[in-house]
Amino acid sequence: LCLAAINNILLFCLQNLCISTSTSCVEIGPTICTCVPLLLLICFSLQEKKKTELCQELSLQARDLRFQHTTSLTARNNCIILRMAALKAILTPESLMVLDFRGLGLERWLVLELAPQLASQTHTLPFEFRALEAILQHKVNTLQARLNEVEPVILDTLESLVDPKILSADRSKLHVLLQNSKSLSELETDIKMFKDSMLKVLDEDETVEEFCLTKWTDPRVFEESSLGIDHAEEMELLLENYYMQAEELGNRARELKGLIDDSESVIFINLDSHRNVMMRLNLQLTMGSFSLSLFGLIGVAFGMNLTTAFEDDPRAFWLVTGFMFLGSGLIWRRLLSFLGRHLETSVPPRVMQTHTQTLCLVMCSCKVQSA
Amino acid sequence: LCLAAINNILLFCLQNLCISTSTSCVEIGPTICTCVPLLLLICFSLQEKKKTELCQELSLQARDLRFQHTTSLTARNNCIILRMAALKAILTPESLMVLDFRGLGLERWLVLELAPQLASQTHTLPFEFRALEAILQHKVNTLQARLNEVEPVILDTLESLVDPKILSADRSKLHVLLQNSKSLSELETDIKMFKDSMLKVLDEDETVEEFCLTKWTDPRVFEESSLGIDHAEEMELLLENYYMQAEELGNRARELKGLIDDSESVIFINLDSHRNVMMRLNLQLTMGSFSLSLFGLIGVAFGMNLTTAFEDDPRAFWLVTGFMFLGSGLIWRRLLSFLGRHLETSVPPRVMQTHTQTLCLVMCSCKVQSA
Amino acid sequence: LCLAAINNILLFCLQNLCISTSTSCVEIGPTICTCVPLLLLICFSLQEKKKTELCQELSLQARDLRFQHTTSLTARNNCIILRMAALKAILTPESLMVLDFRGLGLERWLVLELAPQLASQTHTLPFEFRALEAILQHKVNTLQARLNEVEPVILDTLESLVDPKILSADRSKLHVLLQNSKSLSELETDIKMFKDSMLKVLDEDETVEEFCLTKWTDPRVFEESSLGIDHAEEMELLLENYYMQAEELGNRARELKGLIDDSESVIFINLDSHRNVMMRLNLQLTMGSFSLSLFGLIGVAFGMNLTTAFEDDPRAFWLVTGFMFLGSGLIWRRLLSFLGRHLETSVPPRVMQTHTQTLCLVMCSCKVQSA
Amino acid sequence: LCLAAINNILLFCLQNLCISTSTSCVEIGPTICTCVPLLLLICFSLQEKKKTELCQELSLQARDLRFQHTTSLTARNNCIILRMAALKAILTPESLMVLDFRGLGLERWLVLELAPQLASQTHTLPFEFRALEAILQHKVNTLQARLNEVEPVILDTLESLVDPKILSADRSKLHVLLQNSKSLSELETDIKMFKDSMLKVLDEDETVEEFCLTKWTDPRVFEESSLGIDHAEEMELLLENYYMQAEELGNRARELKGLIDDSESVIFINLDSHRNVMMRLNLQLTMGSFSLSLFGLIGVAFGMNLTTAFEDDPRAFWLVTGFMFLGSGLIWRRLLSFLGRHLETSVPPRVMQTHTQTLCLVMCSCKVQSA
Amino acid sequence: LCLAAINNILLFCLQNLCISTSTSCVEIGPTICTCVPLLLLICFSLQEKKKTELCQELSLQARDLRFQHTTSLTARNNCIILRMAALKAILTPESLMVLDFRGLGLERWLVLELAPQLASQTHTLPFEFRALEAILQHKVNTLQARLNEVEPVILDTLESLVDPKILSADRSKLHVLLQNSKSLSELETDIKMFKDSMLKVLDEDETVEEFCLTKWTDPRVFEESSLGIDHAEEMELLLENYYMQAEELGNRARELKGLIDDSESVIFINLDSHRNVMMRLNLQLTMGSFSLSLFGLIGVAFGMNLTTAFEDDPRAFWLVTGFMFLGSGLIWRRLLSFLGRHLETSVPPRVMQTHTQTLCLVMCSCKVQSA
Repeated sequence: LCLAAINNILLFCLQNLCISTSTSCVEIGPTICTCVPLLLLICFSLQEKKKTELCQELSLQARDLRFQHTTSLTARNNCIILRMAALKAILTPESLMVLDFRGLGLERWLVLELAPQLASQTHTLPFEFRALEAILQHKVNTLQARLNEVEPVILDTLESLVDPKILSADRSKLHVLLQNSKSLSELETDIKMFKDSMLKVLDEDETVEEFCLTKWTDPRVFEESSLGIDHAEEMELLLENYYMQAEELGNRARELKGLIDDSESVIFINLDSHRNVMMRLNLQLTMGSFSLSLFGLIGVAFGMNLTTAFEDDPRAFWLVTGFMFLGSGLIWRRLLSFLGRHLETSVPPRVMQTHTQTLCLVMCSCKVQSA
Repeated sequence: LCLAAINNILLFCLQNLCISTSTSCVEIGPTICTCVPLLLLICFSLQEKKKTELCQELSLQARDLRFQHTTSLTARNNCIILRMAALKAILTPESLMVLDFRGLGLERWLVLELAPQLASQTHTLPFEFRALEAILQHKVNTLQARLNEVEPVILDTLESLVDPKILSADRSKLHVLLQNSKSLSELETDIKMFKDSMLKVLDEDETVEEFCLTKWTDPRVFEESSLGIDHAEEMELLLENYYMQAEELGNRARELKGLIDDSESVIFINLDSHRNVMMRLNLQLTMGSFSLSLFGLIGVAFGMNLTTAFEDDPRAFWLVTGFMFLGSGLIWRRLLSFLGRHLETSVPPRVMQTHTQTLCLVMCSCKVQSA
Repeated sequence: LCLAAINNILLFCLQNLCISTSTSCVEIGPTICTCVPLLLLICFSLQEKKKTELCQELSLQARDLRFQHTTSLTARNNCIILRMAALKAILTPESLMVLDFRGLGLERWLVLELAPQLASQTHTLPFEFRALEAILQHKVNTLQARLNEVEPVILDTLESLVDPKILSADRSKLHVLLQNSKSLSELETDIKMFKDSMLKVLDEDETVEEFCLTKWTDPRVFEESSLGIDHAEEMELLLENYYMQAEELGNRARELKGLIDDSESVIFINLDSHRNVMMRLNLQLTMGSFSLSLFGLIGVAFGMNLTTAFEDDPRAFWLVTGFMFLGSGLIWRRLLSFLGRHLETSVPPRVMQTHTQTLCLVMCSCKVQSA
Repeated sequence: LCLAAINNILLFCLQNLCISTSTSCVEIGPTICTCVPLLLLICFSLQEKKKTELCQELSLQARDLRFQHTTSLTARNNCIILRMAALKAILTPESLMVLDFRGLGLERWLVLELAPQLASQTHTLPFEFRALEAILQHKVNTLQARLNEVEPVILDTLESLVDPKILSADRSKLHVLLQNSKSLSELETDIKMFKDSMLKVLDEDETVEEFCLTKWTDPRVFEESSLGIDHAEEMELLLENYYMQAEELGNRARELKGLIDDSESVIFINLDSHRNVMMRLNLQLTMGSFSLSLFGLIGVAFGMNLTTAFEDDPRAFWLVTGFMFLGSGLIWRRLLSFLGRHLETSVPPRVMQTHTQTLCLVMCSCKVQSA
Repeated sequence: LCLAAINNILLFCLQNLCISTSTSCVEIGPTICTCVPLLLLICFSLQEKKKTELCQELSLQARDLRFQHTTSLTARNNCIILRMAALKAILTPESLMVLDFRGLGLERWLVLELAPQLASQTHTLPFEFRALEAILQHKVNTLQARLNEVEPVILDTLESLVDPKILSADRSKLHVLLQNSKSLSELETDIKMFKDSMLKVLDEDETVEEFCLTKWTDPRVFEESSLGIDHAEEMELLLENYYMQAEELGNRARELKGLIDDSESVIFINLDSHRNVMMRLNLQLTMGSFSLSLFGLIGVAFGMNLTTAFEDDPRAFWLVTGFMFLGSGLIWRRLLSFLGRHLETSVPPRVMQTHTQTLCLVMCSCKVQSA
């Protein structure tokens, strides 16, 4: 009765599979059929009608198959219903049904990895343990792959952004960093949700026991197990194992976030330092320009069409020119050394005003001297 | 007895409804009356007098109907009293009373969605389950709608703000971002409060049982249910479902907050980078101006009304002019290459002082040469 | 025996009250005495001697009346001893004693609100419920008043600080913001401590039962209550109610903190944007000045007292002058368009060097042309 | 037997005490001996040999006296072994032994405060309660003293750093702030560790009971207590009291941290504002210099040794000079008003380019006009 | 049977040890054999074949020896299986097997410290206690060593980075800081994972009992212990001790992180302050240059080849020159004092415009005066 219904679904699934991957189907179809005589891998393309049939078959409620949460893991009426992002599956003691698998990039994994893995007879553990392990391992691998994809890009981008030689951050790299930082946040949320769904099962011993499907259907399997282990304990270990793997991924993601924050501080300090260095250079040049303007004024004064007493003195030109250049050079040096002292001692800038007074005196003395 | 009182309230409600939505009322009123013979949807406009009557009718205390918290969900004397922001409702095994519904934009939902939903007879679950589900679904939908409203605006604004080409942040967009960021915070608080009120019920098994109103009033309903499920467990699943939906919304809101923070860092780095680039250009131009001033001083010197030996030398003009332009060009190039090296090696700026000495030497040699 | 002692204290209290509020006392004193025959409102000015008497009266220990923590709520020997910041009170099944109330701004509330509230006979709840409710409501009101005082000031200040038009933050407003931000932190701590002290009671069912003083002294009161409610449950509801009100205040305070943080980011981006815009303008003007200096050098050259071949050419003046103005105008335009492209493409500034070479070429060509 | 050994240790201790504080010892030694006949205050200078003896005396293990954690509080074999930073003590029902007390600044407190406090006979509580209370009070006082030392320094420093008038942060104050901020972090950790060690005891009722040493050794003391209180409850109150005092200190420290963060934001906004104001002034002056350069070019042109038609026109000088000054003044005003509008409307700076075109036009018209 | 197998493994191990440390092996090998007759230190180089044998020997499952998590501590079938980063070990009641120890820098510790430590017969505690203590101590020491390595580097780097005298942050030090900050994050994660694995054991009393291996195998050992202590309690103390040591390390790491954050703020304020000081100097010099340009324009005007009335006035030169220098000096002083007032009062910069009007007036008056 039950098996007949399942066969129907299997046939339906294979037809769908043929449509989607027409060439590879021919050799895969038989493989599944031959090597999994009892452990059926049923791929099911979700249609409302079929779904209702499936519910009645497994005496589930329609609501149980709605898969409203992106990550969930629940035991219901001797079935484990789970969803890991794209992967929606129902796990009974004898079969694993994967729903809605098309167009999600899961075919390869389902056919090439999951099927042989479930078909291998070497394990002594019941079917649901092996199926759950395969699915959780796949989920953790997916999370790890996403982290492995994001991590080197972020590390490279940060490496080149914190390079102290660069004057301005390369904005295309900032964009890359922002994108990957967003991916990292999403990954962190997914890891957290995966951990939460595991924890919800692990927190209550009863729920863990409900997950041992074989225990309820076929007590013989349990006794046959030569190791004499407790099924619930075994299940707890299995779930805990993947919980801890997810936690390690979460730790790595958190460290990466911290590194981004630290690097951003370093980038800011770098940019600020560059700016300060440039500003100092700018200030030094402004001092030079100021000195030149100040003593250039003397030259402008002598260029006026007004009568001075020196028009015909042949030494006057060299004296005044020399004074202009030497004077501006000397003033510049004084300003530079003033700047050096000023920045080191960080005296409040009121000193500047007294300093400008000495400058005024210098100017006055210039005039006196030139007079 | 009880029904008579309820009918009174219903009539009162319909009168109010007529006043508020005079046209649509005529066809709605009968609809409610005909299709919900047992499951009364009672809309109640809060008046102190009526409230007291209602309390006595349901043997509640006045305090229970004060609705002091914006989000609450409690079982009291075989009633579920809940408030979800604007929606205040009392849920008995046979009726759902919505209080104070006018002017809150709830009429549409109450009449067009809630009424038919509760009236449909296809469900096998007791009335309080269906009503609670409808209300919680409405609340989650409201939260999701608010997030869906805020999210694209924030993403768009951030997208345009982190654009590396822009020199200065568009302040109107900053204002939009700030407003939406505030809305997001409020939404986060609401989600947290919704989750907390759910959690308070879920944390204690007794409270969950109290929520199964039908169980206490009509044990027959429970046995009739062919699924043989436990009502308390069913209620737990229902609440947990909406709790998890709220958690996913909360996760999305948190990610969005993180994205805003990350983007702000990128905006700061962008602005700082632009500033550094402009400062470098400015510095390069200041260097050019300085060179021109330095060698322009020679021109000013020769413009003085003082006697030089070159007044009548026809080549002197070209020599001095060429020296001025070439000299300033060369000095500028040296300064630029010095800047390049300086910023790359990040040597402390003391080198500048030794460099200015070479500049002084250059100036001296100028004078010597011109002499 | 007990009542006599309490009367003594009451008299003592009234004398004190007379001293402090000499005019209003006369009409208040009798009011208390007449309308609260059993429910004594005893205001007590703390003296070591009286305190010891009080301890013996209520068989408390001296340590219980030390009130070391700013917020505490404990049941001790059939009394509730509570302190809410300034308000120190002992609550027995028959009386509420407020200690040390003078000079704390509590007199108004005690006399005008608390006394009539406790004296009203309409409530069916025992005395300790009413007294506790009044005190907790007063505390929550105080917290809310503080938040209501701080919130609009902060919102206003932020509103004016994030105004994109202002170039520099108004520092007096920053000071206001800092002060209110500090008040907000203190308020958050107070709310947290209030919540913690409530939670400590709520967490253990026994403690909640100890709070129902009447239950222990007068079991008759309990049975008289027609509602048939459990006293402990009633007390839990009462405390939970105020706990949740405090939580809502806490949520508002947290949102406000978040808003301050977000606004500060926006202020920084605003200030940085303004600076970038000004820097761009400055750079554009520096470019203009540079162009003018460059071509002004030609004028300076022609101003030298050296022989050129053009002294008597009447067109030369216009040609050279035109070349100076047009040349500097053209160079400026090229520099501006270079700047525009440079900032958009964010090419590393090495291009500048090649550009300066073209500038050098321009200068050379100038000389050639002028030659 | 036991007392003999303790006396030996006491003598040993007194000798040590004499060495360390030779003058004050003579009057202290007897004081201890006379006033504490049963409640011995044993100060013990840790030597490996003596330590082993002590272990055997109290039937403790060597490991118990290793004091590996800076803050610990444990009951072991009817002794309370505690360490509060420098203070290492063993508390038996009859004596308090303080180990390793020399050179830690504890002598003063031990001799002047702890000894009389323990010797006073007025308390009705057993010895271990009084000793524990004295030690915990000392610890809380130490923590409070550290906070009281750090708090005003930080508040003062922040007060002067957020002063809106200062242009640049005083770096010596920043250093002070950083040092005290570090001390505050250490203090926070110490408070947290103190709270954790208290909480570890409080969390389990059994541990609290183990702390009531007298209960186990001398049940008579328990019954003699006229108050009829439960010892374990009494101990819980005592520990809870100091836990809450530590929590209040922790709250104050956290608030202080928050204030530092807020103030830093304000300092940054202040510095940025100052910079923007200075940059605006700088830009306005650059505009002035640009205007002067632009119209100064006319003067330079007329200064060239080239023939113009105006050499002998007496009005030409005044016309050109007036045009130079007025023109530069007008252009400056236009630039300033352009800047004002530009910063207010935050139009993208492309407008500048169109504006420079008008400037070019102005220049052209100048030439035309001068022609 | 069992011992024979172990001997095989031991021999295998010794051969490996010889290969890896050929010289030191000869004297070590016998040492192990002679001094540890019962307590075997088995070093095992992991090969799949041997691993399977080992599993069967200890009746463990293959999965138990996979060591998937970097830090784990579990009791399985009367063995403790633990991994602390590189160290993988199985602890039976009679032996400690260290797996895969080669090339990890563990040989030195294993041979020189662990072997003698386990061989010493002075302890009264069972073997598993001593072995576990040795391994946990080693782990904590490793963590502490890493912290001790990172801490002084960070403190030194921060010390030199927050030096208020430096104008720009030394980028090589920033790099060092970033590297060590990353190491610190990794260390924090490791400490957290160590604490979590300890806590997982400590949280459940059953797990702690499972860790007392001797209790189950040899109840005699337990009774022989003269101290009469409970083994489980003893184990709890041992684990708690290392948990608290790890917590103290974690606290130190957290404090260090906080110090880095605080220092970064101080660095930013320092850099910003420097920039503001330099900007003020720059502004003051720009004011000077502006004054010189303004009054230099007079000189340029008089240098024009146009007719003035003063050509032959001998005082005109001195008057005009004096006016130029004095005027620019005076204007500069006014600008400086304006700047001082402006920055102190933080008046909105509109005042500048009215000020420029006074400047225009000055210019006008100049012209009038010169006219």
